[in-house]
Amino acid sequence: MEALEMLRTRRSVRKFTNQEVTGEQIETLVDAGRLASTARNQQPWEFVVVTDPTMRAKIASITEHGKFIADAPLCIVVVCRDGKYFLEDGSAATQNILLAARALGLGSCWVAGDKKPYADNIRRLLGAPDGYKLVSMIAVGYEAVKPTMPSKRSIEEVLHRERF
Amino acid sequence: MEALEMLRTRRSVRKFTNQEVTGEQIETLVDAGRLASTARNQQPWEFVVVTDPTMRAKIASITEHGKFIADAPLCIVVVCRDGKYFLEDGSAATQNILLAARALGLGSCWVAGDKKPYADNIRRLLGAPDGYKLVSMIAVGYEAVKPTMPSKRSIEEVLHRERF
Repeated sequence: MEALEMLRTRRSVRKFTNQEVTGEQIETLVDAGRLASTARNQQPWEFVVVTDPTMRAKIASITEHGKFIADAPLCIVVVCRDGKYFLEDGSAATQNILLAARALGLGSCWVAGDKKPYADNIRRLLGAPDGYKLVSMIAVGYEAVKPTMPSKRSIEEVLHRERF
Repeated sequence: MEALEMLRTRRSVRKFTNQEVTGEQIETLVDAGRLASTARNQQPWEFVVVTDPTMRAKIASITEHGKFIADAPLCIVVVCRDGKYFLEDGSAATQNILLAARALGLGSCWVAGDKKPYADNIRRLLGAPDGYKLVSMIAVGYEAVKPTMPSKRSIEEVLHRERF
C-alpha cells in the first residue's frame, strides 16, 4: 500500500472475522511499534502479543470499552517503563501499529489503558512488573464490517498559519 | 513510497538544507495529523504552521533541545485542548506528521513540549488560549546530512508472547 494512502485510510475497526493473524504479520506489527519515535532513544516499550482466547476474554472483561477484544483474533498490549515521556513514546508506537495493520489489510482499534482505573489490573494480569505502565491494548484482525468514517474536522479548521 | 518502508525508515533529522517546504506539502503533513487515531473522536488538536524565520528563532531559543528549529524551513507546533487523552491524541498526530514527512522525502524531528517548563511560554507566544496544552514542535525540511540510525532494541527483546 502507498504510504500516504495508509495514513489517510486508517479507521477504527471493532468487528472482526475469525481469520487468524499470521506470525509474520504479528512480527511486522511489532516491528513498526519498536521503530516509532522515542524521546532520547529510550524505547521504553514492551509489546505483549495475546492470541489465547481465555486471556483475551479476561482482558476484554476488565476493560470498559474494549469488550470486542474477546472476539478479535489478536490483541497487542503496549506497556512502557515509567518515565517522563512514556506516554508520548507508547502512543507513537501504538499509532505505528495501527498504521502497519492498515498496510497489511488488517483492521485495528486502540483501547485506552493509561489513566484508566483498570490499568494496573491489566498490567498484573499480563505479568508486567511494577514500574511499568499500561499504555494501550490494540485489537487486530480482518474487518467483518466496513468501518464508517467518523466526522473529521476539516484541514481549514485545524491548520493555523504562523499563529494560533 | 511504500507504507511499510515508510514506517521502517523514518529517522530524526536535525540538519536541513535551505530548500522550502511547499504549501501543498504542508497541507499533506497537517492532513496526516488530523487523521490520526483519537479517543472518542474528540480531535483536540490544532496545528500551527510556522515558517517565519523570526518566529522560528524565538521558538528555538525558548526550547531546550530544539535549537535547530531556527534553521529548519518549517516548524509545525501541535497543541491540544486539555482533556483526559490530549497527550495520546497529540502524540499520535505528531507521529503521523513525522511519517508523512518521510513519505514526502522530507526529514523531521519531534521536539518535546508537554511537561517542559517552557510549554506555556511557547503556547502564549503562538497565541493559543488557556485550556490548550503544547504537545510537540516538529521541525521539517530536506535533510542536509544523512541521519544515522540510533541503536534500536531488537524485535526479540520487545516482543512477548501471551505474557510479559
